Amino acid sequence: MRQPGSSSPGYIRKGAILVKVVPSRGVSGPLGFESGGLACGIKASGKDDLGLVFSRKPAAVAASFTTNRVAAAPIIVAKENLGKTARAVLINSGNANACTGPQGLKDAHRMVSLAADQLKIDRTEVLIASTGIIGAALPMEALESGIKRLETARGELPDLAFSKAIMTTDAFYKQLAVEITLGGQAVVIGGTAKGAGMIAPDLAPHATMLAVLTTDAIVPAADLQAYLDKSLNQSFNSISVDGDTSTNDCVFALANGAAGAVVSSPNDRAVFQEALDYVCLQLAKMIVRDGEGATKLIVYKVAGAKTARDARQVAKTIADSMLVKTAFFGEDPNWGRFLMAAGKAGVDFEADDLDIDINGVPLVRSGQATGTDLAKVAAEMKGEEIQVWLNLNQGNYQDIFYGCDLSYEYVKINAEYST
Amino acid sequence: MRQPGSSSPGYIRKGAILVKVVPSRGVSGPLGFESGGLACGIKASGKDDLGLVFSRKPAAVAASFTTNRVAAAPIIVAKENLGKTARAVLINSGNANACTGPQGLKDAHRMVSLAADQLKIDRTEVLIASTGIIGAALPMEALESGIKRLETARGELPDLAFSKAIMTTDAFYKQLAVEITLGGQAVVIGGTAKGAGMIAPDLAPHATMLAVLTTDAIVPAADLQAYLDKSLNQSFNSISVDGDTSTNDCVFALANGAAGAVVSSPNDRAVFQEALDYVCLQLAKMIVRDGEGATKLIVYKVAGAKTARDARQVAKTIADSMLVKTAFFGEDPNWGRFLMAAGKAGVDFEADDLDIDINGVPLVRSGQATGTDLAKVAAEMKGEEIQVWLNLNQGNYQDIFYGCDLSYEYVKINAEYST
Repeated sequence: MRQPGSSSPGYIRKGAILVKVVPSRGVSGPLGFESGGLACGIKASGKDDLGLVFSRKPAAVAASFTTNRVAAAPIIVAKENLGKTARAVLINSGNANACTGPQGLKDAHRMVSLAADQLKIDRTEVLIASTGIIGAALPMEALESGIKRLETARGELPDLAFSKAIMTTDAFYKQLAVEITLGGQAVVIGGTAKGAGMIAPDLAPHATMLAVLTTDAIVPAADLQAYLDKSLNQSFNSISVDGDTSTNDCVFALANGAAGAVVSSPNDRAVFQEALDYVCLQLAKMIVRDGEGATKLIVYKVAGAKTARDARQVAKTIADSMLVKTAFFGEDPNWGRFLMAAGKAGVDFEADDLDIDINGVPLVRSGQATGTDLAKVAAEMKGEEIQVWLNLNQGNYQDIFYGCDLSYEYVKINAEYST
Repeated sequence: MRQPGSSSPGYIRKGAILVKVVPSRGVSGPLGFESGGLACGIKASGKDDLGLVFSRKPAAVAASFTTNRVAAAPIIVAKENLGKTARAVLINSGNANACTGPQGLKDAHRMVSLAADQLKIDRTEVLIASTGIIGAALPMEALESGIKRLETARGELPDLAFSKAIMTTDAFYKQLAVEITLGGQAVVIGGTAKGAGMIAPDLAPHATMLAVLTTDAIVPAADLQAYLDKSLNQSFNSISVDGDTSTNDCVFALANGAAGAVVSSPNDRAVFQEALDYVCLQLAKMIVRDGEGATKLIVYKVAGAKTARDARQVAKTIADSMLVKTAFFGEDPNWGRFLMAAGKAGVDFEADDLDIDINGVPLVRSGQATGTDLAKVAAEMKGEEIQVWLNLNQGNYQDIFYGCDLSYEYVKINAEYST
């Protein structure tokens, strides 16, 4: 899919708050952050493969890592290294440093040391992540030469350089920044993400999902973790491209306080959370739009569930159904597949109670076809973003999950990609 | 895939027992069973769409039905009607009678009544099943005319006629019969199955999985159910084409005692179970071979798990991973995908303990590449049946699961198939 133009600059109303969206900025949108990217030779293509986010002063830090039992070496090392503050996030693409054994751990530790030495900061202030081929040793000579050149790598568009350096099978870069006002002071939240395949973060997906979020607000680390966890749940943990969860997924958030604004009052907290939610959701939706072979973003909203878990489970099960995904690629309102997928979710409901709309057009009521002209529904399925609303009519819980279609291109990318 | 020639006639050793395999027979292989099939006009193509299995005397019966919460009308009616004995199994293809509301239930009840009247048996002795399009009313006029002609439908190859009449997206029919000896007496177990898509029976998918098993041994209904449940667990419930579970899946087993042999001694019981296991597994493997777009059958054997559930969960999760399935289609030994999929199964193990072989060729030891020439492994992946062995090295439980690859043809079948 082409670089999307949906997040155009300007003000948007997000819940109760007014957010100024700056799509041309990313992780160095907030004050006191620098970023950059360069090519150090990890990727055979010669494309950029090393990116750095740097905070001029120690930043409170929060993080979330893949729940995959097979965690890559940089995940293990970043977890070990995670303290209450950090100053640098160093990410290489082209090599995941996963399933690389003791040598992989040694290489990940060295990646931390090299960055600390180069940036003249403490080892404990360096967070790392890797994405790319699983099972191959990290080319340390290339990495070391790259790290030495990092400080001269800041270009005119540092956000963009970083966002591009962490791409793997991504067709486009993913970043934005938003500006909000807290107690009369402007605060910026910036973010970048990458990922197109092996995407079903359980934070957690060879084409890993990575994101770095930055803000110049003053937020203690424990609070930042709480904001991040809440945002993740409704964004990166609510998307699936292929149902596969990577060995390398991670999300980092850094708050360096450079704007001088404290997130303190209940109202400030709500505004900050909403803005972070917005940034995370926009980045997560970009990942789904860029899903391997994806031609459509599908928003599954399940309502009327008995529990929050039930709503999530039904939405996720439909989004991951191969028969549902191919029906969207075929732009075919094959509603029986929605019912089938809901029914296999392991959730208690009555088939005769189900209602389904597509883009607001009633397709199923009480488990049966409404008689709506299917050609009308098929026309709705031709769009690039489609809303599926499913009401179980059993209770009061609801959830939203984001998926994509399954195309010939998906098979091509993943069958012809060779180790 | 073409009609497979793998189950050639002759004797095969199955565990401790010698089984005579008769691939040309199916449900009317055992004494006292008749079967047939005809075209009554449910399928627009004019192909056969109504099949009957009939026992000359009341047969003990066992059954298993889809666990999908959206169960088709024939599932609901067959469950209601299921007693300790039955004489007829009537199956139509071309229409699933699913998501059809009260009219669907009424039509399913009428399907039972029409068959009972025509065959001059009690309504309680009639079991029904349907497979085909979801959400369309069953064409009762066509069905009624077909049921009236059922008794004249027995051809020279009655098994084959039945096996063909229940096909939908199936590329080939699926049947076999085996002969065993119990207390000096010959006993036959016959079976037919259909299914190619919406296959992840949880005994449970528009291209539903259906099977009918017959035997002329004397087996009480409760025993038959116990044998069936055990066989299902290692066959139909151990396969997945697409991870999708149908609204119409069901399996029926009938034992009419016509051979006069009682399954009684511990040895007889073991022999009968092994033979039934064999028939069910062969039919289940035929379904996976005939999986929509499938070019390969992949046997996943997971050993060294802490619990039986863990072994099953890891095997099933790898088999259903889209990245693993596309790697097999691409014949690419992308072992990182196996590890990723194992790791997302929600099972406790250490990545550094994992061993993986493909067709006996060591690919991974202790979570890392063995250094085996990947071209050698890729050559093993070119076959039509591939064995993947994965040892978690955590405990003593193991399980086997059967899956297939994900091809362009799968997308074509399911995106271009129009409602």
